[in-house]
Amino acid sequence: MTPSNENELTQAVLQRLEGAGDPRFAEIMRSLVTHLHAFIREVDLKPDEWMQGIEFLTAVGKACTGQRQEFILLSDTLGASMMVVMLDQLRATAHAKGSQRMTEATEATVQGPYYWEGAPELPLGANLSEGVKGEPTFYSGRVTDTHGQPLAGALLDIWSGDGEGVYDMQVEGSGMAARARIRTDDQGRYWFWSIRPSFYPVPVDGPVGRMLDGMGRHPNRPGHIHMMVSAPGHARVTTHLFVANSPYIESDAVFGVRPSLIVDFEQHAAGQAPDGTAQAAPWWSAHYDFRLEPQH
Amino acid sequence: MTPSNENELTQAVLQRLEGAGDPRFAEIMRSLVTHLHAFIREVDLKPDEWMQGIEFLTAVGKACTGQRQEFILLSDTLGASMMVVMLDQLRATAHAKGSQRMTEATEATVQGPYYWEGAPELPLGANLSEGVKGEPTFYSGRVTDTHGQPLAGALLDIWSGDGEGVYDMQVEGSGMAARARIRTDDQGRYWFWSIRPSFYPVPVDGPVGRMLDGMGRHPNRPGHIHMMVSAPGHARVTTHLFVANSPYIESDAVFGVRPSLIVDFEQHAAGQAPDGTAQAAPWWSAHYDFRLEPQH
Repeated sequence: MTPSNENELTQAVLQRLEGAGDPRFAEIMRSLVTHLHAFIREVDLKPDEWMQGIEFLTAVGKACTGQRQEFILLSDTLGASMMVVMLDQLRATAHAKGSQRMTEATEATVQGPYYWEGAPELPLGANLSEGVKGEPTFYSGRVTDTHGQPLAGALLDIWSGDGEGVYDMQVEGSGMAARARIRTDDQGRYWFWSIRPSFYPVPVDGPVGRMLDGMGRHPNRPGHIHMMVSAPGHARVTTHLFVANSPYIESDAVFGVRPSLIVDFEQHAAGQAPDGTAQAAPWWSAHYDFRLEPQH
Repeated sequence: MTPSNENELTQAVLQRLEGAGDPRFAEIMRSLVTHLHAFIREVDLKPDEWMQGIEFLTAVGKACTGQRQEFILLSDTLGASMMVVMLDQLRATAHAKGSQRMTEATEATVQGPYYWEGAPELPLGANLSEGVKGEPTFYSGRVTDTHGQPLAGALLDIWSGDGEGVYDMQVEGSGMAARARIRTDDQGRYWFWSIRPSFYPVPVDGPVGRMLDGMGRHPNRPGHIHMMVSAPGHARVTTHLFVANSPYIESDAVFGVRPSLIVDFEQHAAGQAPDGTAQAAPWWSAHYDFRLEPQH
């Protein structure tokens, strides 16, 4: 088929997928081609604009290194990563319950670029923030299933930046800091000390930073601590706890905030903390209960 | 706004464009985000598929060098480049005529990666293919405006691969070959010698080659010679003449073929050619008249 107009062109490209070996790949590419062509026609994309797009994507690829994934950053800042996270959790839930919408399991959000596998396993009550800048915060709560049954020995893989929003991985030659794996006790309870995380900007010295600038957008993420929570027989959830009232809580640059993940951090005067420790300086507390979906 | 479901997520990303300084940029990004999100939802893109997409785009970026533009190749093989070409010519025509559809000017097609600015200006009748492999072909025709008025001194910037489908730029250290700029005479006529171009594959040793393979598609373009035709006061057209019955004429890997650009190449026995030259070997002839849109 030799297309003589725009509709026929799209059809010709779609027809050319009929020999694809993997039906799922063909399905994805059919939708991609359809939307790509529709986008170009909808905005009547001009040749110089097309070339700017080519140059932008090329620069994004060139900015990717072992330490930096600019395409993930692009996906994050366009809300595409968060869409994939939302759909993934919807799918898991629909499968588990035969229903449309999850109402109970802890909501997921983006993993982000700073996960570091193999954080040290520390005992309950440990302080993750030895030598890390920031205000001390006592984190506590429970891990249960979606019926409220406590999950003993559930694993919390925890990471965050410091109190100024800087992650260990961003510091040349740094070892792990503000990271640990902690297991719940026999009543599903967890507690540990770390710092109160600060907002911070995503990297803006590359093409995605220029894109955000053109969009008139700031590059900041509100303060948050990452948790990957898992227990045998249950769906793992990768999520954050966000600091209520953190700057940018209403406008996360990567659209990761979900109302259910916003936690009030309460400030306390120096004195005795819930775990019996004596705190010489003012400290914060944050309480959150995680609920995991049973796996089928 | 903190999105709590997929619809709200798309809306939140679109809202974040309200501060864009350039309204055209905002318009393009709004459409892009809308289609990107719709694509992800339509195929229910899974996290591992998303990651494969990220890795693919990164590999495309990494494959781009001074000599190779893998993102243009990606755009070409998905029909996006040809869509931009079609829309550009439609726009120019609508503007020129106040009507919807061009019926008369020579149709455009993709420029491709092998244009080399500054080809030598040769006299009418010159042989562009000195030292180039391939069967000799006499090209001739006229350049007129869309009312049939001949355009004297119109410039044809001509390039092609050789008779085996190899372009000079693909040969390490090669100078220009099978390229020239030629001007029409006072009756708008042109004629020159070159070779009969062969089909050839686009580069397949990169990620786009792997994509085509997964799609079950061949990577070939049918035989063609490129022409960029211009005259003062007229819209320049960048196009090809395609060899009728060339392999892959029905399935150009970059969707560049348009029915109006397919030319019968006639074979002739050795003997005298139309320009009076004596041809010792069999030769071909190709005739094509170009029509340029007056500019306003």
